[in-house]
Amino acid sequence: MPSPKGNALVGQSGGPTCVINQSLVGIVEECLASDAVRSVYGAIHGLRGILDENLVDLGRETRSTLEAVAGTPCAGLRSVRMKPTRADCAAALEVLRAHDVRYFFYIGGNDTAETANLLNEVAVAEGYELRLFHVPKTIDNDLRVTDHCPGYGSAARFVAQALMGDDQDNRSLPGIKIDVIMGRDAGWLTASSVLARTYEGAGPHLIYLPETAFSMDGFLADVEGAYRTHGRCLVAVSEGIRDAEGTLIAKSKEVDEFGNMQLSGSGALGDLLAAAVKSGLGASLRVRADTFGYLQRSFFGAASEVDAAEAREVGRTAVRVATAGDVPHGSIIIEREAGPEYRARFGVTELANVARHTRPLEPHFIRGANDIAEEFLDYVRPLVGALPRPGILAEHFVAKRLDRSAAGS
Amino acid sequence: MPSPKGNALVGQSGGPTCVINQSLVGIVEECLASDAVRSVYGAIHGLRGILDENLVDLGRETRSTLEAVAGTPCAGLRSVRMKPTRADCAAALEVLRAHDVRYFFYIGGNDTAETANLLNEVAVAEGYELRLFHVPKTIDNDLRVTDHCPGYGSAARFVAQALMGDDQDNRSLPGIKIDVIMGRDAGWLTASSVLARTYEGAGPHLIYLPETAFSMDGFLADVEGAYRTHGRCLVAVSEGIRDAEGTLIAKSKEVDEFGNMQLSGSGALGDLLAAAVKSGLGASLRVRADTFGYLQRSFFGAASEVDAAEAREVGRTAVRVATAGDVPHGSIIIEREAGPEYRARFGVTELANVARHTRPLEPHFIRGANDIAEEFLDYVRPLVGALPRPGILAEHFVAKRLDRSAAGS
Repeated sequence: MPSPKGNALVGQSGGPTCVINQSLVGIVEECLASDAVRSVYGAIHGLRGILDENLVDLGRETRSTLEAVAGTPCAGLRSVRMKPTRADCAAALEVLRAHDVRYFFYIGGNDTAETANLLNEVAVAEGYELRLFHVPKTIDNDLRVTDHCPGYGSAARFVAQALMGDDQDNRSLPGIKIDVIMGRDAGWLTASSVLARTYEGAGPHLIYLPETAFSMDGFLADVEGAYRTHGRCLVAVSEGIRDAEGTLIAKSKEVDEFGNMQLSGSGALGDLLAAAVKSGLGASLRVRADTFGYLQRSFFGAASEVDAAEAREVGRTAVRVATAGDVPHGSIIIEREAGPEYRARFGVTELANVARHTRPLEPHFIRGANDIAEEFLDYVRPLVGALPRPGILAEHFVAKRLDRSAAGS
Repeated sequence: MPSPKGNALVGQSGGPTCVINQSLVGIVEECLASDAVRSVYGAIHGLRGILDENLVDLGRETRSTLEAVAGTPCAGLRSVRMKPTRADCAAALEVLRAHDVRYFFYIGGNDTAETANLLNEVAVAEGYELRLFHVPKTIDNDLRVTDHCPGYGSAARFVAQALMGDDQDNRSLPGIKIDVIMGRDAGWLTASSVLARTYEGAGPHLIYLPETAFSMDGFLADVEGAYRTHGRCLVAVSEGIRDAEGTLIAKSKEVDEFGNMQLSGSGALGDLLAAAVKSGLGASLRVRADTFGYLQRSFFGAASEVDAAEAREVGRTAVRVATAGDVPHGSIIIEREAGPEYRARFGVTELANVARHTRPLEPHFIRGANDIAEEFLDYVRPLVGALPRPGILAEHFVAKRLDRSAAGS
C-alpha cells in the first residue's frame, strides 16, 4: 500500500496537558523530514478550525519557536471541545480535500479519538484517501490499550509535588486537609498522590477514587481513625467520587457537549467534604479543602522529563506509521517492555479500541475503600521521574526540667 | 554590652512558606559556630512547645539532615497559631530560664513579631537577660520596614508559573477564568501574577487587590471589556478583596485567634465570582474559577533560589546580631541596595516596628482599579528569579480555498 503524497494537518482537542505541544512538534518535525508530506498545516482550535478553514503553515515556523512551543504547556494551536455530527465530518473532509490533506493527526483523549473515528468513517465512505491518526494525550490516563497516556506523567508529578508540600503543611499546622484531584471517571491521577508517602507517617493518609463506592459515614470514620493515629489527616480525593448507586458526590448543573459533568473549576466538593467533617467530627477541628483545578494540567515548569520525551515520540511515531503505508489509520499507543528497567515502545491500535470508552484504575492497584496498593508505585514512578525528597528532623528531645503536666495557656 | 553565654532556642510560628526551614537551618549553623551559644534547641510547635517543654537538641541533627530540611517546604519544627497572654509569656520565660536559654529566635510573620515583642517585655520586666529576635517569613510580604519578606519570592514564583500555565490553558480553550490568590490584607502576592504577561495579549487581563475597592458591577464591565478585546479573559483576584465599605467580598464564619478571617481552604470566593459572571454576562459563557490555596505556600519544588538564599541569610544574620551584643532584641530586615543590579543587605529594626501591623501593596505599584503598574516588575523580578518563557506560534495562515462564510455546525 503506497503512501500518498500530499499535505499533512495537525489539530489539538480536549483539555490541555503540559506536554501536548511536544506531540505537536514531534509531528511537525517528522512531517518536515518525510518525502510523502509536502506541507504540514495546523488547525486553529482543532475541528472548529478545519470547519472554518483556519489553517496555519507550521513549516514556516522557526526551529526555535517550535522548540519553545514544545516546552510550553497547553495547546499551541488552541483546542476545542466539540462533538461533531456526520455532516460536520463531511464538511471537514471537504476542507481537507480542498487543501490536498492526505495525513491528519488529531491529538486528544477518548472523545477526540471518537471524532477521529467518525471522520475516518466518512473519508472511507467517500473513498477519499486519508491517513488518519489519533495521537493520545490526557492527564486522566484513562485511554484503553495504551500502557499510559502522554500528559499523565506530568500531571501525576504535579500532584505528587503538591501533596508532598501539603503533607509538610499539614504536619506544621495539624488538622484535617482535603485535596480534590482531577479525574472524572478514573482514579489514576488521584492515585499518584501516594507518591508523597516518603517517610513514616507521611500523608496522604486516605485516598478516595471514583472506582470505589464512597460513603460519607465511612469517610468520617476513616478521617477520625487517621486523626487519632497521626494527630492530623491528609486526604486525597478524586473529583469523580460516587456513592454505591454511582451518583457523583459533587453534582454540577453544567454538562459539556459529551455529557461529561463539569466538576473542575469549582470548590464545591472540597467545601462539602470539609463541612461534613466539621459537622460530623467537631466544629473546633481545623479543616481545610483545596481543589487543585487546572494547575494539574497547565502549571508551567513541573513537567516530567520522561513524559515530555514520550509525548514527542508519540507524535513522531504517528507520522512514521502514517507514511510507512501499512496502516491507514489508528491510535498511537505506548507499551511497557518487560524487565527491571523502565523502557517504552510505541505502536498503534485501531481507532475504535480507544474511541469514547474510558479505562478505570485497575483493581490490583486499589487497596480497600481508601488506599492504593503498593504495586501502583512501580507503575507510576518511571512516568513521573525523580521527585524531591523531604528532610525530617530526627528530634532528639531535651530532658524536661519543670513539672508542667498541667501547664499551658 | 557583652553577649551572654547560654543556650539558644528557635521556634517557627504562623503559616508556613517554602523557605522557612532555610532560616531555621541558617540559625542552627550560625549558633553551632558561635562561642556564645552552648546548645541550640528547637521548640516543637513554637510557643506551644515552649509551654509544654517540648524541646529538641538541633545540634545533634546530622549536617545532611539539616540540609535536607532546609530544602523542604513548611516548618520542620512544626508551627503554631497562638496569641499568648502575658501569663503565657511568663510561663514561657520560666522554661527558657530552666534551660538557660539566652538566645531566642522566633521565625514568623507580624503576629509572631507581636508575640516576640510581648515575650521580650516580660523578660525585660523580670530582668532576665535574653537576646530575642524575630526572623521574618511570610508569603504575604506584608511586614513593615523590610524591603520584602523571605517566603514571598517563592510564593510569587509559584503564582507566576501557575498564571503562565493557566494563561495558556485559557488561550487553548477560551472562556473566563478566575484565579483566587492568597493575601488577606495585602495584594503583594496577587500582584506577582503580572509576571505571567510575557507576550502580546497574555493574561492576567485583570488583577484585583485588597487595596482597591471592589465593585461587582465594575468587575462585570471589566470582564466583558477584556473578553471583547481578547476573546477570553484571565482574572487574578486576591482572596482579600473588599467593597468600598471595607467588607470582604468572601465572608467566612471562621475567625482564627488573631481575628483574621479564614479565607483559604475554601472555593467560596471563586465560585461566587464565577456565578456572578454567568448570571451577569450570560449562562452560556465558559466560566471557571480556581482557588490556589495552600499550594502557594507549600508546593515542593518551585522555590525561588534568591528567596531560599535570603531566607538562610536572614537566619544567620539574626544569630550574628544577637551574639554581637550591640542590639539585645529586634526583627531582621532586608534592604535593597541602590544600583542597576539587585543586591540585598541585611539589618535589624525594633520589634515594635514590625509587630502586628501589615503593610499594604504600595500605591505606586497599583494601576487603576484592576491592574498593576509597570514598576512593580522591577521590584518583584529579582525576588522570583528567571521564569520559563512560553513559545507562541507565529501562525502563518494558509489562504482559504472554500467560500465558507456561513459554514460550520
